Amino acid sequence: MEKIIRTALGEKKADIVMKDTNIINVCTGEIEQEDIAIKTDKIALVGNASHTIGEKTRIINGKDKFASPGFFDSHIHIESSEITITEFTRACLSHGTTAVIWDPHEIANVRGVKGIREILAESRNLPLKVFVMIPSCVPAASPKLGTSGAVISTEDILELAREEGIMGLGEVMNFPGVLSCDKGVLAKIKAAERFRAIDGHAPGLRAEKLCAYFSTGIRSDHESISGEEGVEKLRRGVFLMIREGTASKNLASLIKPIIEMKMDTRNCLLATDDKSPEDLKDQGEVDFLIRRCIEEGLDPIRAYQMATLNPACYLGVDNKLGSITPGKIADIVLLDNLEKVNVTTTIVSGIPIVVDGRFEVKIRNYKYSSEIQNSVNVGKIPEPDAFRIKTPNKNEQKVKLIRVSEGTLITSSETEYLKVEKGNVIPDPKKDVLQVAVVERHHASGEVGRGFVRGFGLKEGSIASTVAHDSHNIVIVGTNWNDMAKAVSEIVKMQGGMVVVNRGKKISHLTLKFAGLMSTEPIEKVIERRKKLEKAVIEMGCELESPFMTLSFISLPVIPELKITEKGLIDVINQEVTNVLF
Amino acid sequence: MEKIIRTALGEKKADIVMKDTNIINVCTGEIEQEDIAIKTDKIALVGNASHTIGEKTRIINGKDKFASPGFFDSHIHIESSEITITEFTRACLSHGTTAVIWDPHEIANVRGVKGIREILAESRNLPLKVFVMIPSCVPAASPKLGTSGAVISTEDILELAREEGIMGLGEVMNFPGVLSCDKGVLAKIKAAERFRAIDGHAPGLRAEKLCAYFSTGIRSDHESISGEEGVEKLRRGVFLMIREGTASKNLASLIKPIIEMKMDTRNCLLATDDKSPEDLKDQGEVDFLIRRCIEEGLDPIRAYQMATLNPACYLGVDNKLGSITPGKIADIVLLDNLEKVNVTTTIVSGIPIVVDGRFEVKIRNYKYSSEIQNSVNVGKIPEPDAFRIKTPNKNEQKVKLIRVSEGTLITSSETEYLKVEKGNVIPDPKKDVLQVAVVERHHASGEVGRGFVRGFGLKEGSIASTVAHDSHNIVIVGTNWNDMAKAVSEIVKMQGGMVVVNRGKKISHLTLKFAGLMSTEPIEKVIERRKKLEKAVIEMGCELESPFMTLSFISLPVIPELKITEKGLIDVINQEVTNVLF
Repeated sequence: MEKIIRTALGEKKADIVMKDTNIINVCTGEIEQEDIAIKTDKIALVGNASHTIGEKTRIINGKDKFASPGFFDSHIHIESSEITITEFTRACLSHGTTAVIWDPHEIANVRGVKGIREILAESRNLPLKVFVMIPSCVPAASPKLGTSGAVISTEDILELAREEGIMGLGEVMNFPGVLSCDKGVLAKIKAAERFRAIDGHAPGLRAEKLCAYFSTGIRSDHESISGEEGVEKLRRGVFLMIREGTASKNLASLIKPIIEMKMDTRNCLLATDDKSPEDLKDQGEVDFLIRRCIEEGLDPIRAYQMATLNPACYLGVDNKLGSITPGKIADIVLLDNLEKVNVTTTIVSGIPIVVDGRFEVKIRNYKYSSEIQNSVNVGKIPEPDAFRIKTPNKNEQKVKLIRVSEGTLITSSETEYLKVEKGNVIPDPKKDVLQVAVVERHHASGEVGRGFVRGFGLKEGSIASTVAHDSHNIVIVGTNWNDMAKAVSEIVKMQGGMVVVNRGKKISHLTLKFAGLMSTEPIEKVIERRKKLEKAVIEMGCELESPFMTLSFISLPVIPELKITEKGLIDVINQEVTNVLF
Repeated sequence: MEKIIRTALGEKKADIVMKDTNIINVCTGEIEQEDIAIKTDKIALVGNASHTIGEKTRIINGKDKFASPGFFDSHIHIESSEITITEFTRACLSHGTTAVIWDPHEIANVRGVKGIREILAESRNLPLKVFVMIPSCVPAASPKLGTSGAVISTEDILELAREEGIMGLGEVMNFPGVLSCDKGVLAKIKAAERFRAIDGHAPGLRAEKLCAYFSTGIRSDHESISGEEGVEKLRRGVFLMIREGTASKNLASLIKPIIEMKMDTRNCLLATDDKSPEDLKDQGEVDFLIRRCIEEGLDPIRAYQMATLNPACYLGVDNKLGSITPGKIADIVLLDNLEKVNVTTTIVSGIPIVVDGRFEVKIRNYKYSSEIQNSVNVGKIPEPDAFRIKTPNKNEQKVKLIRVSEGTLITSSETEYLKVEKGNVIPDPKKDVLQVAVVERHHASGEVGRGFVRGFGLKEGSIASTVAHDSHNIVIVGTNWNDMAKAVSEIVKMQGGMVVVNRGKKISHLTLKFAGLMSTEPIEKVIERRKKLEKAVIEMGCELESPFMTLSFISLPVIPELKITEKGLIDVINQEVTNVLF
């Protein structure tokens, strides 16, 4: 405290002074041309900083540039980027994102409290401020419909709440549970009441349901699609996370009425939710969302507030972060252009990490635990036989199958007649009826769920992945049992990842060493591998745009209509296991 | 939680529904015509509430009225109103103030931690939400210059911080201490770092001094006078408390540039600081400040935000209070008129306290501890002799005297020649030179400080008070020693208060039973007593507008130039005891 006071007064000299920069003042909504003096990790002074400049003070010329507080991504599942938080940090800092609010829902489903503790530990070494929300829905569905790797109980929430870096409760996806006053769901919300931030997930909730859901103390929502829905949530006191990511793009429709109606935007935040490594590399991060808001006609300063002061207020850390004012942590981004949001320099906690586009600080790798790197535990590797669906019928069998479609996570249920050979129902790639299976991978239970699927279009081979929402068991689609078994054995060998197998040979793969969800390699490598995977799948006949994404959601028993887990085919509407065979 | 959810859904019925009211939506900055459904102490629903109305639901017609969240007074010393917090509650609820942020600086100087605990206990029984700040400057000056009743140490702050109702650190008045990095002052700020709210006191601090002071984590200021000063503080991230009370009136000058420059007002709050019982009765409370802001040209909704959502955000209680949105505590005020801020109905925690101007709920008295009601401990009551100033000189003595003036707390030092009789220096009412004394009243030390004062204009008698900033010993001004001794004995008899004595008789008095600072009687009684006191003083020749206020500040050794405590005459500039006699 003393160093900062003395620096402001000029009795000590600043470490860094940014001269004559156009400060985006998110407190008053103005642009001010002033100097910024930084000492240790804090902003000591804003104003004329001449008296704080000493021989050792580093001068950063801010003339004709704009200085913004570092950007917050208000809601993200880093797992969707398939890279570790260390690698994500390397990717996002040059885009000005200095803070993320991470709901590690997927990691928690695989490795529970231990997994969360591991990312907390990893995050503490990083310049990125990683605010972690405790996943509220682990497992995401009833245990009778599927087996997750771990459970997060109310007691776990109370215990995790004490950890440094934990800032609230992750999205309460079980909104039917809230509305029906499910004791377990309400107990978890209650357990998080000491936090300011309890994230919501309320797609389409309106009027009395909206009020009921948010009356619990849940404070934000990132699932709004229409402008009217967003406006209603803002009116009911909800922090509206305007989402624009890889999977969902809602920014344009949400921002429109807010601009037109000149609404107070203090409760508007920006979030990506899910961001593919390609989009992260190509578009950037929250800088892209700020730019999009401005393109849609929002006053630029308000757009910057949504990425800085507003999320800091949401978390209750605005006394430490979110504005360029004395005493705050010096997370500062320099921009070439206010509207285009071109980040050139990123300072984090007073340390220039990226200067004029060049990294000055090396971000070190983290040494992961053996437990997180060995998350695939199937026991005995299944033989091809394990995927056979047997029938007493002779020539033909009527089956219920899952129909996947482009551009939606909702599946439908179809029926088909398949040939029977030696008591086994035979998949028929010509009719686009492939076999699908889920192999339990957390507890070596040996459970395998089997079924049929249409929509992948593979003419040969098999694909498999350990990214399989939300329990992340191994999901496999294939034209034949041998390739399916080979795919699983390759997954086990890699200890998690995605693989394409054909005629008994591994064609392409992406190792996801971290809990079977995230690669521990650089983003460029991951993008390259993903391209090769997709190319291989296309060559085998698949016409889906994102075959591995479609694959990863086929096992999620909370999105209608027909899904599959290691328990078998799941009738989502009735929340029960259903028969493949008629 | 369950009751509220079920009420929103209509499965249970609301306790109260306000129909068709014009809701001041402080989140979006709009007026919305909707119903409000209340269950227990919470707002269950905003919108069409028809489905929540049952047989027992009380309907409050809100048509053509405006509903605002309850008002916050962001900074007040209740002691200045000379009534207890219970009585203050009775007075302010009908004006729509449902929350106050109280810095009990005076009580702490008399009774320390115990005094704070007593007001916390009293406040817990009240419908008013009383957010207590831990006084940071107790004592306010060095012990060598005066004796307070108690000390609040850094350890006390850490301990009090755990108490329910404590919300932060009270105004850090010792800004020179902050700027000189005084270890004790910085340690207290550090001790309060877990709070969002640390109140500042930075009159006239600008540029580097402003940055230095607020770099410590101090977050607000209520001492700004000029518009430029206010604007600079807002730009540096300070919560600007726009003050308009009895002692200081800064609203017009502060609000003007904010309106003209169309600044973001989220960090603007409203505060009275000190409010006399007469002003409280005649003008109202924060309702008066909202009205004044609107009169000055501020957009009405922004004015309401400054009294509701903004202070809730400052404290970090906006997840519970400050907006009319689902799940928040139902502190709601109904108004006849948006601009005139005429409060007709006040609901607190779901209970209608005032409806159409009539109290529906009786606010019960609190039983105070014997310790708080017996705070005058002088030991042996001083004889008239105790006030004599002796001199070896014969006929005449040159003295240094305190000059008080109308409308300022700053005194000056004058010299005068006084007659000597029997070795005593004699006051001379004809020259307006009266005797002044301070009798230590906390520890029965028997210490008496003596001096002379000009400016009171008394022709006869004596006045005395236990309200004597900041240590609140007994301060006495008189034309003769007998009346001064009588005044002190009356004060001791009352165990605190204000008294006017003439020719050995008590003419008028106001008993201040609570720590010698506040009456335990109703506000009307206090106002009546204060009128009589002032009339009596005028009749004795005094021409000061507020003689007891002037009296109460004559003992404050931090405001220049010459003051008096039980240690003697104080040279404020040099912070030392100085001689009366030359």
